[in-house]
Amino acid sequence: MTSTSELAALDRRTLVHPHTTIGAPAEPLILDRGEGALLWDTEGRQYVDGTCGLWQCPVGHGRTELADVAAEQIRRLEFYSSFGDYSNAPSIRLAERLLSLAPAGLERVFFTNGGSEGNETAIKLARLAFHHAGSPERTVVLARTGGYHGMGGASLAATGIEGLRAGFGPLLPDVEWLGKPHAIEHGPDAADVLVAELEQRIAEIGAHRIAAFIGEPVLGVGGMVPPPDGYWPRVQEVLRRNGILLIVDEIVTAFGRTGHWFGSHHFGIEPDMIVTAKGITSGYVPMGAVLIGRRVLDLADGATFLHGFTYNGHPVGAAVALANIDIIERENLLERARVLGARLRARLDPLTELDHVREVRGVGLMLGIEFTDVPTASVQSGCRADGVVVRASGTSIVLSPPLVITEEQIDTLADVLCRHVAAAAS
Amino acid sequence: MTSTSELAALDRRTLVHPHTTIGAPAEPLILDRGEGALLWDTEGRQYVDGTCGLWQCPVGHGRTELADVAAEQIRRLEFYSSFGDYSNAPSIRLAERLLSLAPAGLERVFFTNGGSEGNETAIKLARLAFHHAGSPERTVVLARTGGYHGMGGASLAATGIEGLRAGFGPLLPDVEWLGKPHAIEHGPDAADVLVAELEQRIAEIGAHRIAAFIGEPVLGVGGMVPPPDGYWPRVQEVLRRNGILLIVDEIVTAFGRTGHWFGSHHFGIEPDMIVTAKGITSGYVPMGAVLIGRRVLDLADGATFLHGFTYNGHPVGAAVALANIDIIERENLLERARVLGARLRARLDPLTELDHVREVRGVGLMLGIEFTDVPTASVQSGCRADGVVVRASGTSIVLSPPLVITEEQIDTLADVLCRHVAAAAS
Repeated sequence: MTSTSELAALDRRTLVHPHTTIGAPAEPLILDRGEGALLWDTEGRQYVDGTCGLWQCPVGHGRTELADVAAEQIRRLEFYSSFGDYSNAPSIRLAERLLSLAPAGLERVFFTNGGSEGNETAIKLARLAFHHAGSPERTVVLARTGGYHGMGGASLAATGIEGLRAGFGPLLPDVEWLGKPHAIEHGPDAADVLVAELEQRIAEIGAHRIAAFIGEPVLGVGGMVPPPDGYWPRVQEVLRRNGILLIVDEIVTAFGRTGHWFGSHHFGIEPDMIVTAKGITSGYVPMGAVLIGRRVLDLADGATFLHGFTYNGHPVGAAVALANIDIIERENLLERARVLGARLRARLDPLTELDHVREVRGVGLMLGIEFTDVPTASVQSGCRADGVVVRASGTSIVLSPPLVITEEQIDTLADVLCRHVAAAAS
Repeated sequence: MTSTSELAALDRRTLVHPHTTIGAPAEPLILDRGEGALLWDTEGRQYVDGTCGLWQCPVGHGRTELADVAAEQIRRLEFYSSFGDYSNAPSIRLAERLLSLAPAGLERVFFTNGGSEGNETAIKLARLAFHHAGSPERTVVLARTGGYHGMGGASLAATGIEGLRAGFGPLLPDVEWLGKPHAIEHGPDAADVLVAELEQRIAEIGAHRIAAFIGEPVLGVGGMVPPPDGYWPRVQEVLRRNGILLIVDEIVTAFGRTGHWFGSHHFGIEPDMIVTAKGITSGYVPMGAVLIGRRVLDLADGATFLHGFTYNGHPVGAAVALANIDIIERENLLERARVLGARLRARLDPLTELDHVREVRGVGLMLGIEFTDVPTASVQSGCRADGVVVRASGTSIVLSPPLVITEEQIDTLADVLCRHVAAAAS
């Protein structure tokens, strides 16, 4: 065994971690073990996981059942390409399962390795569909300030967080911007304001030039921001009236996070494409999927989709995803997200009385606390020192624990966080 | 158990496979089991795997050792994000191992889920490095006709196969093109011609505008095309003289495929970045990596790299990759690729005497047969009917069996393929 300090030195000497400064590696926190909503580092320190890594883990850590499923599938057929006519049983079964859980109108599945690839896929397919249907000028993607869709060439171009784009340009052309769908920035008639803006931007650009609109049901990296009441059905209506495809990015919001299989269920919409990942396997094996609706299939009917990532339909990922969905059903985790989300929300709501807290918000078990001028990184590090993992995301602290977190762990999370939020005022 | 015909019907009703026609799903070949270089479909038919799926499987199928490693890591810590200061032991150890195997000058590792993401990463990092170093006008990527770098927004933009780009534009700007590095297209002085073209293009565009050159050591999807003799060291010299970063796409060529750990070893070059995937885990779990060299680290020193995909440094992928590399070493698979590659090549070389065969070529255990006017899809389907999987790629049939393929299986592969190639003339 190598000691923690040796591993840490090796980390700093060999790795570039995402979102770190090149040439100035951080002292790493090396995690060693997980179970449910608990984590332990290599020194044996225990943490309550308030973020589920990057939202990916509805069923929690350390499910031996999923280890067994993965191993069994590897022994049988670890992988073969799904390009062209090659296929495998787990990916077929998973496609059927996903469609049975998804909102109406979604009829086919295209697999990926993760979220970014899914949004690359959806944007490419939207453009191809119109190109094939005789509207090659429909190339524009409408995206939203505050939206996060990934780090590839197309998914980054549609990401509306300026800092993430700087220094990487020129990015993919023909992305046009809408305002941040955040009620507190638009006053009491926020939905009216945002829908009017959408109509106006479509008129300015020309509906005949717009392929798709892309948005997260609840902004994730943007701070766990639900849209104003009534926003989504009205947006859907405007898009349909203008023949624009609705791509809903459910990389974060699917598989129980909002208390439903998909965030689209929560908001009562039927997208033309849903992009998902993360919770599909609870992160045990990388996997993602794009669910494709009838309008897209009709537009693209007869087009050859010359697109695909190597691990499309990975049988190990698919087998784990099926077992993961079984667990979510068996343990009734959708309801659990609603009940525990309400419990956590009730604990956090009083924070809004503090001058430096701008908003407490969320849906299901994805919550955010936005500050006026508090250094969120210090709240994050303070909580960690007290054995609770939360995540600073811009001016917000965001929470998305595993859906299996216990009531006691929720209370610990809330107590530690509230203490550090209160202390951050001084 | 569901029958093959039921699974096939479900496949056609629920999936869109890569590289198929929307609305016209193919009858799938449903693979069920693999061992070494053999595959079996759900009807029990056996195939010799002449392509390793999409090149991803140096150690062959069905390694129970890798199933055990994956399960053990899942039970311990299936995954936690590696963003910021979070880390885990398997990814640290894998980074060290990769750097110990890589060409000189590569000093840090950034993990991804696969090849496309790796090239997205390398292109973004090259641009960021110059942006940070005070040369924000260095945004151009030089790419090559016939090159394949992936299907994301940036990686597709750098892919020089026209059919793969159609209908998806406008793609990422500032990619400029060089000719296909294929000796038979440029005559006996092919390397001179290509190097002169490179110098000329740099002069036209202006070196001060060019961030990077990207290329595969041997064109993969482009048909397993090695470059003309002497090409790579001369290209490297021109790029260094002009301050242009060399990104080498070793998604296909690393981990033994060319008879070396990296194709860069075979050609004697020291890239500024190497992008790899596939063979790193033999495809058992999706994973990729970008190896970053000193010049990039110096240019980007002090820049914050606001980039990363969720599953960066996945502990299960990393644990499997380490065990996979152990197998490649223990079973001496680099040498095996050279020996068996020569055996297969000797069997295929006589095909060049046929009028309809334009070229037999390759390096190590990656070989291509290019035709003048033969429908390669029919050769592929003919071989499959005789229990041998080969892959049609444009006007070529390409071969990249697992490195553990036996001598007898190599001979079967060659015999069946030669028979169908000969028959295709009529």
